[in-house]
Amino acid sequence: MTPNEIKENAKKYVLQSWSKQKDLNPIPIEKAEGIYFYDYDGNRYTDMSSQLVNLNVGFGNEQINEAIKEQVDKYCFVGPAYAAEPRVKLAKMIIDRLPEEFGKVFFTNAGADANENAIKIARMYTGRKKVFSRYRSYHGSSFGAGNLTGEPRRYPLEPGIPGFVKFFDPYLYREGIEFESEEAASKYYIGKLREQIIYEGADNVAAIVVETITGSNGIILPPKGYLPGIRKICDEFGIMMICDEVMAGWGRTGKLFAFENYDVVPDIVTFAKGVTCGYVQLGGVAVRSKIAEYFDDHLLSCGLTYSGHPLACAAGVACVQYYEDAKILENVNTVGAALAKELDSYKETYRCVGDVRHIGLFSCIELVKDKETKEPIVPYGKDEHKTMPKIIGMLKERRFMTYSHENMIFICPPLIITKEQLLEELEKMKEVLSIVDETMLD
Amino acid sequence: MTPNEIKENAKKYVLQSWSKQKDLNPIPIEKAEGIYFYDYDGNRYTDMSSQLVNLNVGFGNEQINEAIKEQVDKYCFVGPAYAAEPRVKLAKMIIDRLPEEFGKVFFTNAGADANENAIKIARMYTGRKKVFSRYRSYHGSSFGAGNLTGEPRRYPLEPGIPGFVKFFDPYLYREGIEFESEEAASKYYIGKLREQIIYEGADNVAAIVVETITGSNGIILPPKGYLPGIRKICDEFGIMMICDEVMAGWGRTGKLFAFENYDVVPDIVTFAKGVTCGYVQLGGVAVRSKIAEYFDDHLLSCGLTYSGHPLACAAGVACVQYYEDAKILENVNTVGAALAKELDSYKETYRCVGDVRHIGLFSCIELVKDKETKEPIVPYGKDEHKTMPKIIGMLKERRFMTYSHENMIFICPPLIITKEQLLEELEKMKEVLSIVDETMLD
Repeated sequence: MTPNEIKENAKKYVLQSWSKQKDLNPIPIEKAEGIYFYDYDGNRYTDMSSQLVNLNVGFGNEQINEAIKEQVDKYCFVGPAYAAEPRVKLAKMIIDRLPEEFGKVFFTNAGADANENAIKIARMYTGRKKVFSRYRSYHGSSFGAGNLTGEPRRYPLEPGIPGFVKFFDPYLYREGIEFESEEAASKYYIGKLREQIIYEGADNVAAIVVETITGSNGIILPPKGYLPGIRKICDEFGIMMICDEVMAGWGRTGKLFAFENYDVVPDIVTFAKGVTCGYVQLGGVAVRSKIAEYFDDHLLSCGLTYSGHPLACAAGVACVQYYEDAKILENVNTVGAALAKELDSYKETYRCVGDVRHIGLFSCIELVKDKETKEPIVPYGKDEHKTMPKIIGMLKERRFMTYSHENMIFICPPLIITKEQLLEELEKMKEVLSIVDETMLD
Repeated sequence: MTPNEIKENAKKYVLQSWSKQKDLNPIPIEKAEGIYFYDYDGNRYTDMSSQLVNLNVGFGNEQINEAIKEQVDKYCFVGPAYAAEPRVKLAKMIIDRLPEEFGKVFFTNAGADANENAIKIARMYTGRKKVFSRYRSYHGSSFGAGNLTGEPRRYPLEPGIPGFVKFFDPYLYREGIEFESEEAASKYYIGKLREQIIYEGADNVAAIVVETITGSNGIILPPKGYLPGIRKICDEFGIMMICDEVMAGWGRTGKLFAFENYDVVPDIVTFAKGVTCGYVQLGGVAVRSKIAEYFDDHLLSCGLTYSGHPLACAAGVACVQYYEDAKILENVNTVGAALAKELDSYKETYRCVGDVRHIGLFSCIELVKDKETKEPIVPYGKDEHKTMPKIIGMLKERRFMTYSHENMIFICPPLIITKEQLLEELEKMKEVLSIVDETMLD
């Protein structure tokens, strides 16, 4: 196919996620390397969102590519009932990198089914049915993961599944209460959550599911003491604490797993994206040994054809090894410090920047019409003038490729980005923020 | 890792699907080729179930392997928002091979999420919420697909999602009514379904979801006129007819899609397994043009990070091409005829064989204690003496590798199997059926 045929046939034959299809004009991609990708006219684009915050090592990683090819020469697939070396190796590597309480991994194809299976495992283990999750969360768009999700991407799945209960997260920028300290905010939120759990019947609650750091709803960082507070509630009532590390895991925050930043050990961790960077699709559920042991004598009623797909796991083994060989965490911390400094300065410089939130290379800019009132630059769920697509479009004109959610722009580049590359790209962001200040505010 | 370490670490670190973990003793697989795979001691096993009825072209297909390696050298992944050649090519190839009514494909990672998204699409398109599916069906184990599922693998997902309604399928072997003809049976079943839909409120029903041919619940073939009867109900009430072709599609029945055997055109087709044979995981939802066009102006509220994964789609392009280049459908019809003849004779020969059901290379043997009473060799859901694992174990001792479900044994070999290979393996099946007759009946 010619580049034009690729584009036209994409519009003709492919249904694209989260879109009205007539609005689409997808760029045909010819090749990709590191943090850059190219169309067939030789235009170079910088991937400032790691695609969908999955491509942590960038494009064309040689170690992962070679590992895939080597596994192809052995076999691409054998069923989950057989012992396949890459599957076993990767499970061991993951458990070795988690706290000592962890015992086994159940593999899935991606993040949504990781969360689906995590809830099922928590229900089977506890014998309880209710599952708590938060507003402003995204856990996937299948019925189970989508019912955990606390924003509009859940709506097509309603009426909701009985027993899925939502609670509010500590989104301090828009809370309306001025807390003395992060600890005070955490105390308040944990108190409310505990109260809600008691009114729902603590003995009915199987799990509390949280994104360790809220991802696509705006890089909302847990205040000090918040996650340990959830841990304490879980311990008090025998509830499973499930940390969704699909986006935040695998080095994104400067630690291998995001919960390591917060002095807490969950019962169950779900992961996907960064475990293979999506070179081959893979997700999984890591569980503490006590949970794993329960299934020695009880049927694990979870399953999928491609659980522990050997080709995917071979990619995972190479990817997890690469994080260490290439000292990726060190780079995230170094470049992340430069990113933090830049973003913090934008909050001072630009009228449209209401808040910036960042940890490692996981960050967003929250745009407002007015810094004082904090009125979002677009009303929630109703960007009728397509303001945010226009802003993302201005970045795209400058080949700074990322995406937005409501009034927020994400900056989550591949973890291999250098400080120089980052600063070069951020010049484009500053140009665009200036234009927003000048032309799009009241 | 040594072979023994692979086995021991599999037991130590990996949670395996649908199992009590202490029962496991997985065979470590070193290599695989065609219909055979090998452990590290050089033992050869014959894959008589195409793993999980996905490996239609067998192991080590050179065309697919090369396509994967070539795509690795371009890029493994770009996000769904870009036009990636393999994704576009495969979508076009699929639409070209479906009836002319079909327009676009939404890609997923596997069969469960294909079914999840098919229901979502039907709900959005019709603006209705209720979804009909059948007892004795399996559509996946995530919450949406699992709520469609009409057997015990659904139980851990309950309480069920509001609006998911079950109806009975035409399982004529155990119906209890003697119908004059297949057509008479279909008339009865379609009448009952129509009645049930009216009592549920036909205007509330978004979709009727059926496996075109019931797969893991026992290769239950629709009687003549049944699927056209469902089509007629759907047309009468504006309901979407969704055919789940995850197992039955891609040549398994001797036609590319199973519905082609039954003179019917669904509104939505879900597929997975055979589209890539699982070399890389892939699933999808193909929809009629009228549905695709609806989403020109309405938000398609479906999405997943790996929708249309380029590496998976490259494998799919090569796989779909291979079916034609290697004249796979012809082989299925030729070898399938030999399989049918053999199986039909078992029903005469062995006391334990209550029924055999087959189409193409999609078949099962239903075991009974007594041919007259049709009492299953194991009670439903309660195989306390592990009778079926013993029978599967006897086959395994003979290196005939397949699996069972309740009182049924599946024979679904790779579609590349020759008649000679098939007959060689069926000798082992006959030995085992003789032993069952001699030692396991009353």
